[in-house]
Amino acid sequence: MTSEVDLVDRLARAQLAMAATHVDVLLLSVGRDLLYLTGYEAPLLERLTMAVIPKHGSATMFVPELEAPKVPYHPDVFDVRPWGETADPVALVAAAAGEARVAAIGDQTWAAFLLALQERMPRTRFVSAGPVSSSLRLYKSDAEVALLRAAGSAADKVALRLEETRFAGRTEADLAADVSSMLIEEGHHAAWTPIVASGPNGASPHHQAGHRAIAEHDAVVIDFGGTLGGYHSDTTRMFYVGDPGREVLDVHELVRAAQEAGVTAAVAGARAGDVDRAARTVISEAGYGEFFIHRTGHGIGLDMHEEPYIVAGNEALLAKGMAFSVEPGVYLPGKFGVRIEDVVALVESGAERLNNSPRSPVIVG
Amino acid sequence: MTSEVDLVDRLARAQLAMAATHVDVLLLSVGRDLLYLTGYEAPLLERLTMAVIPKHGSATMFVPELEAPKVPYHPDVFDVRPWGETADPVALVAAAAGEARVAAIGDQTWAAFLLALQERMPRTRFVSAGPVSSSLRLYKSDAEVALLRAAGSAADKVALRLEETRFAGRTEADLAADVSSMLIEEGHHAAWTPIVASGPNGASPHHQAGHRAIAEHDAVVIDFGGTLGGYHSDTTRMFYVGDPGREVLDVHELVRAAQEAGVTAAVAGARAGDVDRAARTVISEAGYGEFFIHRTGHGIGLDMHEEPYIVAGNEALLAKGMAFSVEPGVYLPGKFGVRIEDVVALVESGAERLNNSPRSPVIVG
Repeated sequence: MTSEVDLVDRLARAQLAMAATHVDVLLLSVGRDLLYLTGYEAPLLERLTMAVIPKHGSATMFVPELEAPKVPYHPDVFDVRPWGETADPVALVAAAAGEARVAAIGDQTWAAFLLALQERMPRTRFVSAGPVSSSLRLYKSDAEVALLRAAGSAADKVALRLEETRFAGRTEADLAADVSSMLIEEGHHAAWTPIVASGPNGASPHHQAGHRAIAEHDAVVIDFGGTLGGYHSDTTRMFYVGDPGREVLDVHELVRAAQEAGVTAAVAGARAGDVDRAARTVISEAGYGEFFIHRTGHGIGLDMHEEPYIVAGNEALLAKGMAFSVEPGVYLPGKFGVRIEDVVALVESGAERLNNSPRSPVIVG
Repeated sequence: MTSEVDLVDRLARAQLAMAATHVDVLLLSVGRDLLYLTGYEAPLLERLTMAVIPKHGSATMFVPELEAPKVPYHPDVFDVRPWGETADPVALVAAAAGEARVAAIGDQTWAAFLLALQERMPRTRFVSAGPVSSSLRLYKSDAEVALLRAAGSAADKVALRLEETRFAGRTEADLAADVSSMLIEEGHHAAWTPIVASGPNGASPHHQAGHRAIAEHDAVVIDFGGTLGGYHSDTTRMFYVGDPGREVLDVHELVRAAQEAGVTAAVAGARAGDVDRAARTVISEAGYGEFFIHRTGHGIGLDMHEEPYIVAGNEALLAKGMAFSVEPGVYLPGKFGVRIEDVVALVESGAERLNNSPRSPVIVG
């Protein structure tokens, strides 16, 4: 639960960011921006929930009447206005937004709501709320980093338990269900569906755990995490069912070196793209560049994927309070894949890895 | 898995609906419309997935490169165009959409993508894809109704098992976890988090199962379901821990009569609003009208909530192939709530209830 003091501070910072970007009103629907600024995690519904945040003063949150009992009470931050089943919530939001010249709308708001608001507010220019909200959420407080650290360390315990787990003969989906249970047992409040990609399936970075039975000599990519106090964990470790052979182990060592290089480059003052380049260079120089087919990482916090994106060309400067994954990989179609991932937070003393389970090849039964 | 034949038919019907509504191109991102028309269930990501469906000919689907291996192969319906990590997918979609005068965009597309497309396509008018897609999805085929029926009957088995389950002394959250497990055991592929609302919590229609321990004499609302073959179940039954007392039983009988009246009114040729009125009249005439604080129901299919909405003022005509919930309730603040819900499908022979577990008061231990 976010405290009223934090919410008052966040509202003030949002209004500063609005002034700096010439935004008259901020319109936030379902999503993490709303949670960050109001403490309310709205359900994804066809009924509109929207906070109307003006340049000055407190906000107004329009919620479907039957969700109203779940909205936290923070009268210094926002008033709650429940709307009944036959009301027109778009008209209510438009009236509250008044004569705004520029309205910034939450990035994950449904297009249907944006179109309806655009029609209702023809003189208002709509822009993405991304720059306003991510300028706040990019810089985690110590309390937020503490939650990311706790989530990371709970995920690490699962990685350690996996070293003692039977792999051979079980399906990916079965093992994935185990990983989810372990995440909850170790303190996560929710677990997202883990990636368990065995043998040739490992060559698809976002493979969904399926009915393939894990076999002797398989390389198994397990990418897992969840939320704890609203903040995400996200880590990837490699498990090998018996000896995977020379080529796999060589690729493992290569990816580990690339991941190390990425973490080493992750310092305040560097650019996000520098971290990508550091990891990618290691893999390219070994001749595997074309098989590292995704960005090196993504910011993490209330969303699993958020700013800063660790991708070539991202010139954003890294700074204290930022948290992101470093997760290079090599994917050989039809053969196997290897990925190693930690979340890193930039704290007072430098880059801190929030995942610390062994990154060496783990041989399982 | 949707067959190629079905997808070709759906594409043709979508293009007819586009012609009828003067839409030049349909732009579908993550969501059930995409699944319905392409067979691809895209993950919710900040990386854009978008199908560009022209008035004539086959479609083009732009997907993040690392998701591409998961896209089904239906070359008569769409080509897949993977985009790499440093590409600009909005530019690719705009180029494929060409000189469209009117583009219809999927209702659940993120606002950030719509804003970027509007900026890139300044001469195009954007409208909601809702009318095009719901005109197709409203009318379920026999195969779709069969999946809804199978999901409903799996949920009914859970309702029967709950009659034999211990309630007293357990927390709502604990019982909710049981319900989820049972839904999977009975054949659902996924379960959404059930509503378990005990005692006074029952007065909040969308209460989240929490740490309250269920006590003797509690009325417990359990609203649960999941998906089977992509199609949703959704049913609500009432459980009473010992004798709940006269007032609760009277309200139960009232809600049951209202639900019966709603189902009876659900016939092809009636208006959606008529079903709401039929159920609401029963409750209002008994003096409880102000405590029935939500619409009577919602359409159901690939989405848990979709057209037709069973709400006052909805003049849409009900017709064969439509499926929706009928779920009146009475909510007495600080005391208890009662809701009874079935999914109904309009089939050749008339209205068919897809939930058939007992609607009478169930006394549990």
